[in-house]
Amino acid sequence: MNHYSIGIDIGGTNTDIGLVSTSGQVVSRRRLPTANYLRATEFMQAIGDAIGQLMDEHSLTDIRSIGIGAPNGNPQTGSIEANTPNLSIKERIPFLEVLGNRFHVPVALDNDANAAAIGEMIYGGAKSLQHFIMLTMGTGIGSGIVINRQILHGSTGTAGELGHTIVQPDGRLCGCGRKGCLEMYASARGICQNYVEAAQAHGKVLSEKEIRTLTCQMVGEAALAGDPIAMAAYDTTARWLGIALANAVAFSAPEAIFLMGGPTRAGEALMTPLKHFFEENLLFLYKDTVQLRFSELNLNEAAILGAAALGEAAISAAPHAQ
Amino acid sequence: MNHYSIGIDIGGTNTDIGLVSTSGQVVSRRRLPTANYLRATEFMQAIGDAIGQLMDEHSLTDIRSIGIGAPNGNPQTGSIEANTPNLSIKERIPFLEVLGNRFHVPVALDNDANAAAIGEMIYGGAKSLQHFIMLTMGTGIGSGIVINRQILHGSTGTAGELGHTIVQPDGRLCGCGRKGCLEMYASARGICQNYVEAAQAHGKVLSEKEIRTLTCQMVGEAALAGDPIAMAAYDTTARWLGIALANAVAFSAPEAIFLMGGPTRAGEALMTPLKHFFEENLLFLYKDTVQLRFSELNLNEAAILGAAALGEAAISAAPHAQ
Repeated sequence: MNHYSIGIDIGGTNTDIGLVSTSGQVVSRRRLPTANYLRATEFMQAIGDAIGQLMDEHSLTDIRSIGIGAPNGNPQTGSIEANTPNLSIKERIPFLEVLGNRFHVPVALDNDANAAAIGEMIYGGAKSLQHFIMLTMGTGIGSGIVINRQILHGSTGTAGELGHTIVQPDGRLCGCGRKGCLEMYASARGICQNYVEAAQAHGKVLSEKEIRTLTCQMVGEAALAGDPIAMAAYDTTARWLGIALANAVAFSAPEAIFLMGGPTRAGEALMTPLKHFFEENLLFLYKDTVQLRFSELNLNEAAILGAAALGEAAISAAPHAQ
Repeated sequence: MNHYSIGIDIGGTNTDIGLVSTSGQVVSRRRLPTANYLRATEFMQAIGDAIGQLMDEHSLTDIRSIGIGAPNGNPQTGSIEANTPNLSIKERIPFLEVLGNRFHVPVALDNDANAAAIGEMIYGGAKSLQHFIMLTMGTGIGSGIVINRQILHGSTGTAGELGHTIVQPDGRLCGCGRKGCLEMYASARGICQNYVEAAQAHGKVLSEKEIRTLTCQMVGEAALAGDPIAMAAYDTTARWLGIALANAVAFSAPEAIFLMGGPTRAGEALMTPLKHFFEENLLFLYKDTVQLRFSELNLNEAAILGAAALGEAAISAAPHAQ
């Protein structure tokens, strides 16, 4: 039995392909410029060739599985659907069919937040957990909800959009067209907005350029260094996130909630106030039953590991495949 | 094979025991005064005797199953735990063990909202659904969340407390000690409070006695008759309920959400504004994927049917038992 699987993280700009050991090491990787491809067949051919190179490089004659994390990935069809926003290829991309036929291994595809959740379960801090939630914080906020070690897909295949739960009715306008979504307060952009408002409240005037060049990483570093405005920005983030996560607990009663992504680099500047607001908003029934934790996956490898974990999970779901 | 099961609805005041046909008819029922019992053994003996009477009355030598719906019912142990609030019996009540030994059939116990959800699935409008949510509206708000035709219990056994999701941060003070829970706006009491506030906004002065004697049923009847203050009260209910249910959809992507309980007697005075606010707050991904519906169970029988359905569901979960 071999010990390597393939994890593929598809983004609008780049696609990362990694060879992953069963212990969760990304032993080798390739990058393809997604935006350069316009045809599904050519894109899948290039991905298949990259997989072949990774196998040759390690003298492998076979692999265990292939997993693919992609925004708008449809786990039911194993495809990225036609006309996906932010993707240069406008055709449907039938990964499961094409890569399955080429490599004769289980192939699984899901959206990136669900991939991250399965990654935490197979390689990270959720190895022994039955029920948990993964929150992926970045430009937006995604989530993967795990119940009895299965991703909750719901009737549409698209369950688990905690970033778009409304926490502040009539709050900030969200890109989805509604107001007050969690994403507007706790994503990287939301945290920058919190900083701008906190500066105003502290009587500090920010220039147009300062506002335009502000990044979530800058706010996080300033908060860790004790800057009161940056700390106030993270307090706001923690307040809304605390309410949203307490509400999520009243839904599925998980053992743990994991946070992943750029904004988590702020470490205790995020976690300390978050634990405070989470506990404050948690229904008494659930006190001391839920852990708030950072993901144990390395942020640079998490997307590949999550994708590889999808394939690994598919092996146990399809026992005849290998 | 026989065609009758037993459904038991345990409340703090009364316990209702019904003989239920496989087609969902409550063919006969008994009532015990729960509050008169102080010892678990005596209470279970009386329930067992009532079951025996119901069987004798219909010349039955056996039954299919026994299901019990109870506030704070623990599905994992099949017991009502010791020191349950609003219950005169302060001992643990081990129903599964005692009734199972006496009648030799599958016995299942769960909280009343989960029982209602399973009742809808076995006897009501959710017979063909995989994923749905049941909201039980009464003095409080309970919920049962069904995923792949299974109740979501979570790690604690107590998942699914949508009545205690916070919809209005810093809103009305809830009995749970927090502020802004859905229950404060959409339970029977919440609807009365909405009416009092709407009267104030309309410049109508209510006497102390009018406020004290106001019931949700009165508000519902007035709303159906076109009273603008009562309609405004239901609009407020619908607004907060619409947000909470839209958030629930972003969690589990159900095919339908069912509403049950006294406040649903207001019919279209509730449903019409609710559909409006629900659609307005629903993430675009889920448009036209979720139905809002009233329970198809008769309100006078729903608790017994829900309890009986728990037992019926236990038959398929425990194939060796019968």
